[in-house]
Amino acid sequence: MEEKIKIAKTYDIVTKDIKDKIIDGTLKMGDRLPSEREMAEKFGVSRTSIREAIRALEVIGIIESRRGAGNYIVDNFNNSLLQPLSMMFMLQEYSALDILELRESLEIQCCKMASKIISKKEIEVLNNIVIDMSETTNEDKSLDLDIKFHNVIIKASNNPLIINVLSVISQLMDKFIKDARKIILCKDDNREKLLGTHKDIVLAIESKDESKCVDSMKNHFELIKESYIKIN
Amino acid sequence: MEEKIKIAKTYDIVTKDIKDKIIDGTLKMGDRLPSEREMAEKFGVSRTSIREAIRALEVIGIIESRRGAGNYIVDNFNNSLLQPLSMMFMLQEYSALDILELRESLEIQCCKMASKIISKKEIEVLNNIVIDMSETTNEDKSLDLDIKFHNVIIKASNNPLIINVLSVISQLMDKFIKDARKIILCKDDNREKLLGTHKDIVLAIESKDESKCVDSMKNHFELIKESYIKIN
Repeated sequence: MEEKIKIAKTYDIVTKDIKDKIIDGTLKMGDRLPSEREMAEKFGVSRTSIREAIRALEVIGIIESRRGAGNYIVDNFNNSLLQPLSMMFMLQEYSALDILELRESLEIQCCKMASKIISKKEIEVLNNIVIDMSETTNEDKSLDLDIKFHNVIIKASNNPLIINVLSVISQLMDKFIKDARKIILCKDDNREKLLGTHKDIVLAIESKDESKCVDSMKNHFELIKESYIKIN
Repeated sequence: MEEKIKIAKTYDIVTKDIKDKIIDGTLKMGDRLPSEREMAEKFGVSRTSIREAIRALEVIGIIESRRGAGNYIVDNFNNSLLQPLSMMFMLQEYSALDILELRESLEIQCCKMASKIISKKEIEVLNNIVIDMSETTNEDKSLDLDIKFHNVIIKASNNPLIINVLSVISQLMDKFIKDARKIILCKDDNREKLLGTHKDIVLAIESKDESKCVDSMKNHFELIKESYIKIN
């Protein structure tokens, strides 16, 4: 057990040291790390502990170890890095309102940004999703279309930070959309209303009118909130 | 090298499997995982690969291994889990505008929520920060106060999802505030203006008026945006 505590502590020290260097700009993507021997000496811990800490960072995809050439910060990230954090967000069991408040504020922002720069092709994709939504009666297909609709707008915002933040919690969002649809569609005439709010969002984006974007997204989320309040 | 690819793949398979079980609700915090032998058989990989994948999840703080009792999902998360992701966000080098758009939308939301439920004590903390801000001429102290000011409002929103999302990118935000202050304070009369926007935010929260909260935060971010646009 003591050995484990030692490794966990070394991991914390090593990650903190690397992060500090990233913050002050001395380490960037693709850069080489000091040797394991140098790190062991610097932090006064065994090379085994250093190796295991580095190994964990390698497995999760932050560091790349090149045989005989040392350890490097990766030069591009893949999705596996997001998995552990995505898990943490899934385990926390946030309330529907917590999720709604986050989604509403970020999607209003994305909608406003998207309206300024969205391409004709993306508008066409959104219009086609709405047509498919109106034609299908299969809920699995409707759910996929709903998730896709929001992702097209998020991506069209062209803000890589917001896109990355939302991708970290995308599973949480997808599950929320699934649960929310079930609750909203308990009431028969809500299917048309929900479709209507999606149509309005596309019209608002097309109009490039910022206040229409805000209002259409607000109405969309209002419908979801109302349904939750009526149930709970 | 092949061995490494095998372990990385096993890590991906194991994390995906655990995550799927978290999503469908069969695994919760504190739950026991299947034994390493069972997992090795299920996925058709060696126990060594499974052990190393589990080890990485343990080092980063998702799994806790209890001697002789197996592996468990942790029952509370500590900050070290956020470190690798925080690093990823630091390495991406987002533009000032990307960061401003994310912060503005989430902080407007936090300000609105906070205004409904903030305690008298928290209002007092905000007022004291503004007084300290007006009295100090030391930029390091001013920076700390600025960061603290925004964190008090974020925390007062009482939305744990937004708080967690912002804590993942807090280092990115702190660095942004530091850089933004340098740019804003190049112009002499901006010190008073910046202080004024902070004062207005407290008044808006105190008034519990939603539109005042939105306006005061917008004005605050407008001042930052203007300074950036003038420089770039």
